Amino acid sequence: MKIPVVRNILEANDRIANEHKELFRKNNLLVLNLMSSPGAGKTTLLENTIEHLKNNMRIGVIEGDIQTSADAERIINAGASAVQINTDGACHLDGNMIKAALDSINIEETDLLFIENVGNLVCPAEFDLGEDFKVMILSVTEGDDKPEKYPLMFHEASVLLVNKTDLLPYVNCSMDKIRQAVLKINPKIKIFEISCQTKEGLDNWFQWILEHIKK
Amino acid sequence: MKIPVVRNILEANDRIANEHKELFRKNNLLVLNLMSSPGAGKTTLLENTIEHLKNNMRIGVIEGDIQTSADAERIINAGASAVQINTDGACHLDGNMIKAALDSINIEETDLLFIENVGNLVCPAEFDLGEDFKVMILSVTEGDDKPEKYPLMFHEASVLLVNKTDLLPYVNCSMDKIRQAVLKINPKIKIFEISCQTKEGLDNWFQWILEHIKK
Repeated sequence: MKIPVVRNILEANDRIANEHKELFRKNNLLVLNLMSSPGAGKTTLLENTIEHLKNNMRIGVIEGDIQTSADAERIINAGASAVQINTDGACHLDGNMIKAALDSINIEETDLLFIENVGNLVCPAEFDLGEDFKVMILSVTEGDDKPEKYPLMFHEASVLLVNKTDLLPYVNCSMDKIRQAVLKINPKIKIFEISCQTKEGLDNWFQWILEHIKK
Repeated sequence: MKIPVVRNILEANDRIANEHKELFRKNNLLVLNLMSSPGAGKTTLLENTIEHLKNNMRIGVIEGDIQTSADAERIINAGASAVQINTDGACHLDGNMIKAALDSINIEETDLLFIENVGNLVCPAEFDLGEDFKVMILSVTEGDDKPEKYPLMFHEASVLLVNKTDLLPYVNCSMDKIRQAVLKINPKIKIFEISCQTKEGLDNWFQWILEHIKK
């Protein structure tokens, strides 16, 4: 008797991710997997993005958190629909969690779906969720040594948003050093400097979304 | 034939951690497992701590990083001995990694050993390394919602250092909210407010170490 063996967790995950990719493609849905350290500004970025784009398109958000539904509440208040995943200790989202969340989303009537991953600069980068693009946020308060120390996420991301640039005068962080280190790891990555506090630079990010929307 | 089965990774880890605990105890070594998000200030705190205490005691550091030995170099420059562990993608340190690192440390001639964990607010909290205390750092730039969203680490830590208090005027973060949330999760935790930039509050942290040193 031949027993089919799934070689590893990532292989099983990729299988599910491919099913999702097909589903998203069929529905012309743009899906962005948003990743960062805890507190880099994922939810605040989403609030800003939803408020700016909600009249142009239908936006949904899958919120990944270890506990609480505080972020999903913020998303709904900003004017999008949200589904909360509580990972109950797990440090990243995987394909099965997304599968469960998709049951609660009207994909046909959504144009843009954000998946806000668990705040973690390491593990989320390893799991394909079927998204079109991985988008990551780095806060300048985290320091300019992060690309070298956590290269995988910078390698996997298509877009890097360097956030909290309003704090640059008060922290020891060089934007040039970030750019150089990131481009060495991933020469094709698109980098936007933003501040969700002052709104500086956000227009370039909104423009990027408008250029990639499929419907 | 009865095959001994290690029930899970954490159980195997606990066995190794207990061996280390015994080794540390025999040598009157104070061991602190330092954990935080990426960029909260672990290495900068260690630099400050080493510079202040190196004339009073012999300090060693095990540096956990996914890649690079940049942090170990900073530690050596500050005046302590350092061993670098590169986890090669893994998001936390475990007992086996510490076991390998201990071969390069002269435990008998060390009074204080720091283990700087991988920058990650989730997984490191699950792995006992045989330390006396888990010490965690939260930067005010990460926001006051972090204790509720990542409760395990706050629950496991004996000491919380709230760092970068010099940035409080520029960020949306309430120290009262942090205190209340943390004490709800862990009423016994010791909280110090510090700024490694201005050095404010660091004396209380140094004093805590002096009170707990064993030799």
